[in-house]
Amino acid sequence: MRNVLPYMLQPKSIAIIGASPDINKLNGRPLHFLRRDGYAGKLFPVNPKYSDIDGLTCYPDVASLPEVPDMAIIAVSQKLATNAVKALGEKGTPVAIIFSSGYSEIGDEGAAYERELLDAAKEHGIHICGPNNLGLINAFENVTATFSQYADQPPIAGPVAFASQSGAFGTGISALARSRGIGLGYFVNTGNQADITLVDVLMEIADDERISVLSAYIEGLRDGRELIQLAHKAMTVEKPLIITKVGRKAAGARAAASHTGSLAGQDIVFDGVLKQHGVIRARNEEHMLDLVSAFSCCPIPNGNGVAFITQSGGAGVLMADRAEELGLDVPTPSAQTQAKLKEVIPSFGSSANPIDVTGQFLADPKILSESIKISLQDPNIDSCIVWLQLMHGHADLLVDIFTDVKNSVNKPFIVCWIEAPEQALQKLRSAGICIIGATERSVDAIAGLAQYGEARKLCASQTSAPEHVEILDTTVPGVAVPTMTAANMLESMGIPLAPTLLAETPEEARTTAEQLGYPVAVKIESPDILHKTEAGGVRLGLTNADDVETVTQEILAAAKAYNPSASISGVVIQRMAKPATELVLGLRRDPIFGPVIMVGLGGIFVEILEDVAFAAAPVTPPQAEAMLSRLQGAAILDGARGKPHVNRKALVEMICNLSNFALAHTEIAELDLNPIFADNKGVVAVDWMMIEDAKN
Amino acid sequence: MRNVLPYMLQPKSIAIIGASPDINKLNGRPLHFLRRDGYAGKLFPVNPKYSDIDGLTCYPDVASLPEVPDMAIIAVSQKLATNAVKALGEKGTPVAIIFSSGYSEIGDEGAAYERELLDAAKEHGIHICGPNNLGLINAFENVTATFSQYADQPPIAGPVAFASQSGAFGTGISALARSRGIGLGYFVNTGNQADITLVDVLMEIADDERISVLSAYIEGLRDGRELIQLAHKAMTVEKPLIITKVGRKAAGARAAASHTGSLAGQDIVFDGVLKQHGVIRARNEEHMLDLVSAFSCCPIPNGNGVAFITQSGGAGVLMADRAEELGLDVPTPSAQTQAKLKEVIPSFGSSANPIDVTGQFLADPKILSESIKISLQDPNIDSCIVWLQLMHGHADLLVDIFTDVKNSVNKPFIVCWIEAPEQALQKLRSAGICIIGATERSVDAIAGLAQYGEARKLCASQTSAPEHVEILDTTVPGVAVPTMTAANMLESMGIPLAPTLLAETPEEARTTAEQLGYPVAVKIESPDILHKTEAGGVRLGLTNADDVETVTQEILAAAKAYNPSASISGVVIQRMAKPATELVLGLRRDPIFGPVIMVGLGGIFVEILEDVAFAAAPVTPPQAEAMLSRLQGAAILDGARGKPHVNRKALVEMICNLSNFALAHTEIAELDLNPIFADNKGVVAVDWMMIEDAKN
Repeated sequence: MRNVLPYMLQPKSIAIIGASPDINKLNGRPLHFLRRDGYAGKLFPVNPKYSDIDGLTCYPDVASLPEVPDMAIIAVSQKLATNAVKALGEKGTPVAIIFSSGYSEIGDEGAAYERELLDAAKEHGIHICGPNNLGLINAFENVTATFSQYADQPPIAGPVAFASQSGAFGTGISALARSRGIGLGYFVNTGNQADITLVDVLMEIADDERISVLSAYIEGLRDGRELIQLAHKAMTVEKPLIITKVGRKAAGARAAASHTGSLAGQDIVFDGVLKQHGVIRARNEEHMLDLVSAFSCCPIPNGNGVAFITQSGGAGVLMADRAEELGLDVPTPSAQTQAKLKEVIPSFGSSANPIDVTGQFLADPKILSESIKISLQDPNIDSCIVWLQLMHGHADLLVDIFTDVKNSVNKPFIVCWIEAPEQALQKLRSAGICIIGATERSVDAIAGLAQYGEARKLCASQTSAPEHVEILDTTVPGVAVPTMTAANMLESMGIPLAPTLLAETPEEARTTAEQLGYPVAVKIESPDILHKTEAGGVRLGLTNADDVETVTQEILAAAKAYNPSASISGVVIQRMAKPATELVLGLRRDPIFGPVIMVGLGGIFVEILEDVAFAAAPVTPPQAEAMLSRLQGAAILDGARGKPHVNRKALVEMICNLSNFALAHTEIAELDLNPIFADNKGVVAVDWMMIEDAKN
Repeated sequence: MRNVLPYMLQPKSIAIIGASPDINKLNGRPLHFLRRDGYAGKLFPVNPKYSDIDGLTCYPDVASLPEVPDMAIIAVSQKLATNAVKALGEKGTPVAIIFSSGYSEIGDEGAAYERELLDAAKEHGIHICGPNNLGLINAFENVTATFSQYADQPPIAGPVAFASQSGAFGTGISALARSRGIGLGYFVNTGNQADITLVDVLMEIADDERISVLSAYIEGLRDGRELIQLAHKAMTVEKPLIITKVGRKAAGARAAASHTGSLAGQDIVFDGVLKQHGVIRARNEEHMLDLVSAFSCCPIPNGNGVAFITQSGGAGVLMADRAEELGLDVPTPSAQTQAKLKEVIPSFGSSANPIDVTGQFLADPKILSESIKISLQDPNIDSCIVWLQLMHGHADLLVDIFTDVKNSVNKPFIVCWIEAPEQALQKLRSAGICIIGATERSVDAIAGLAQYGEARKLCASQTSAPEHVEILDTTVPGVAVPTMTAANMLESMGIPLAPTLLAETPEEARTTAEQLGYPVAVKIESPDILHKTEAGGVRLGLTNADDVETVTQEILAAAKAYNPSASISGVVIQRMAKPATELVLGLRRDPIFGPVIMVGLGGIFVEILEDVAFAAAPVTPPQAEAMLSRLQGAAILDGARGKPHVNRKALVEMICNLSNFALAHTEIAELDLNPIFADNKGVVAVDWMMIEDAKN
């Protein structure tokens, strides 16, 4: 796949199947745009209706083309598209973009046409992008191979690549980018992704030296591991990857699934994997463009400390509020920094953070420029936002101030300018200064930079790309693994369990309990009894051998009565662990990402608040640590409510061992360690349920 | 106070003290603006330096004025301002706006000047707005009495009033409003609020028939009860009140307090009171203007059901995600509605919700207009958002479609138009159609309308304005009320407690326990021992009279040992309640709002998650019900985790009774009922701590 993408993204010649001289039609627009924008490669319109289009030779069919085009645009109806794919493949064209619609986006009937189209492409050795897409733009080489409204104005080249599964929303986002002066070096719509995916495209573009920021709009993925590979690649080439994925909530996910035909998967898993691999997630189109703007203008901050420089106390407070919500620090400047600030700021200003420079800087510009520079010299201040509004009479002065600052500092700063004069905006953008026009959004953008800085550190420890893993078909129900088999498997991977042994008879239970020490729990062991408590098969807190023997007799009898045909292995005897902070650890086979690890606090945190964090295996220790920090109830781990703090190192080790277990045991479909008891000494699982894939 | 506000807001004559011919100076700008905008009243510039300004007679001093001006602007330095106030007061001017700065905003020294200024005003019978403010605009009567940059362009009159404590941020918000085509009938900056407050101003404006939406930017309040009065007034005149208050978080609140000198109070209390009284809170300037725009264009929806009409599946999903986060419903249209939709929407569109009308409406406009109308006829759909992007070639067509819809429906709809053509925006605004240019923000705006609709229903039951209540000085530490005194007070107000009696001796404890029934708890009772457990003064679960007698002896001995000088009243014996769902109820004297009631779920919900809801007393039953629904763990009340559901009616009654208690017992500074046990039968407090104000 990868070797055909240069033909698609940087074609030296393009055939347009179904080309039209009518620039208002989707089959007329690409040729018009390509010529308008000065595309330097060869263009081959193909349409039996015309002998030339606007002076350019038009060929009656693909076979008649004088040479093999690098890439083709198929702009004919769904009925004709398959034949066009075949003809192009036979000609030797490596790749085609398919505008045609009427495929999986319209339901089952269309999906059959899409399979037919893909089969034809495979058979004739051609890769396809689409169908149901609106093309791509490579603004560096003037490849305006699209019918998108965005191209109604000539594209502006720049360091940002944007790939979108949605044509309409992608067009909207691109147009917003333009109006903010953000140059999109690439804009690619991948449509139904029958063959070439958004991830494929960004993997290729990530290597383009002209691109420094990767961004994507996603509705669904079929293979999440590809996305992890992309995230890893982006981290390796030091280019931030910013993704908006819809389907955050159930209602949205339902709509997304019906819209794209891709499996949406559980959003909490997707979100966990993005965080794990340093992908910055944008909530919506505005957030995405704010982040894109910040990343394309600013260096990456070293930490979470942000200073706010304003001449409006209120805006400073609003930004400080938002910073706290996002986990940023708003440090008080050091005594030294404050002393320097006081030398430049009028006495009625403030050298605390938010820093109030007052309106006096209009008379003395150094007040503002020096305040920014001094603040950013403070070791606890990693970034800053300068807030101002209107100032139409002072636009040039402010441009000079910010340009001076930009040339003098190497930490990120964002100018939050409410109702900025247009000429100032244009000049500042040309100077590579990030401008955002809304107060909270500017803080959100700084937070994105800081989050990425953290992620870079987190991912620095991970040197190789994560291996590819098999994704099980989780729609097949699995079978329960016997408790002792599961225990042996888990213990051999270093997962600590409460001491547990099988006893086949009441007498054996007696000696087993003596061996383990008291108190013990006794539980029925049968592959046919999953709801042990319901079957009268669980008894806790037994403190002597006589009780253990009697209770085992009772449990075995109750189980037989509950299910006379059940095969009963005996009972498991478990030394009861001292109650401590409860957690839950789990392994799932996600349909998108394969083996994923879940951690959460027990009780209401997992049951009511759904407060869990996910990551895809393999999970490194820093990633496991980050998962714990993401929990809403993370304070519990530090020993809230009079309980001892939890041994985080042991917990992190357990998560990583479970991740290794997931990769080693590809036959295990599902595993719950619930509950885990954790205290300041260590962690131990006191119950587990393991489900094996039925195919094994 | 109220009777002078018409002079300030609709003055028939204005004196400008310190007027200047230099329109670049703050003392030159108001006169220039007033004349530019055609203010029809009389203008009296006062400045000994000039005999006339631009052809208008300039007076050397206030005493020389030919008549008493309705209102004065004081635009002189802080040193001269007090004398100007005195002279104006002597002249008989009822009210003055004070631009001068150098008062409480700069610290203690300035605060002293501010007190001096206020004393002078009081002494000379004049009210003041400011100091440190930038004036006001009444755009209906062309009163451009400000030096704000916002007035650099002539103000546009409209149905929105905006009052701001911040001058700079207020100017920014006003300018943003203008660029969105929102007409501000009033823009008032209240500065340091030495005398006239933002609440005073909006109370007056609420009666102006030309205004239909009230909005405010707040940094801090001194008297929260005034705000409740305003909220009640706004509800009575059916005008939504939208407030942005900064200081949501600790960092922001600290900065706000240092900025304005107002007490910020606890934001969670402020937020609870706003929700209780139907005030819509905006997070930031963009959110505020989105809400203002929606409220000034749309009717109030009857419910939470919203339909999304798009030609981008992705945007539909993003909106559905956001709707679910905000608690809106995204109902599937009824079979009847879907049948009607299918008649107009092409087969490859979708009649589910989000509704995908496809791009075909450009050929057949009825597809879009009919889809909106049909959707809004569905009884479960209360509002709708129509999403689209660009469409520069079809601007007029779309204007026609939306204007047609606006004239045919009486439910709210918002057009979310990404990168809309400017001429369409202007026409749609003139037609009174709400346009928002960002996907999630359009859903936030609909949610604001729905929230207000709910609030109107909630407040409909409350017929009279809440009474004024005394606000205690909570900085004075209080004294603990004895358990039995507190119990009697609470029970007489209908607050159910676990049966509790005092026993002075071990023998009396014995008979008391027999009388109450077992199991019982025994607790030391002493005004000098607050930490009972620490003093060995609490024993639980006693089941017979002998144990009670022995334990009482032990407790009394332990208490004497713990604090030999303690005055010991005996022990309280309490019949232990059956454990159930735990809640916490509390009463506080908030420095801003006076008596406020708090409710939360017990355990980690209150301790770790700080999941509590506040309301100001008096609390009505629907308000108490709404407090419970706001809790993050509200699902617990419906019987999660195998526990029975909670008797909400009893809980609501307890909250309302506690609110009555708070109003009846103004001497009680603080009360905790913690825990409360609640099950499906009822609620009972099993422990309470009551603190009386030390002054009583």
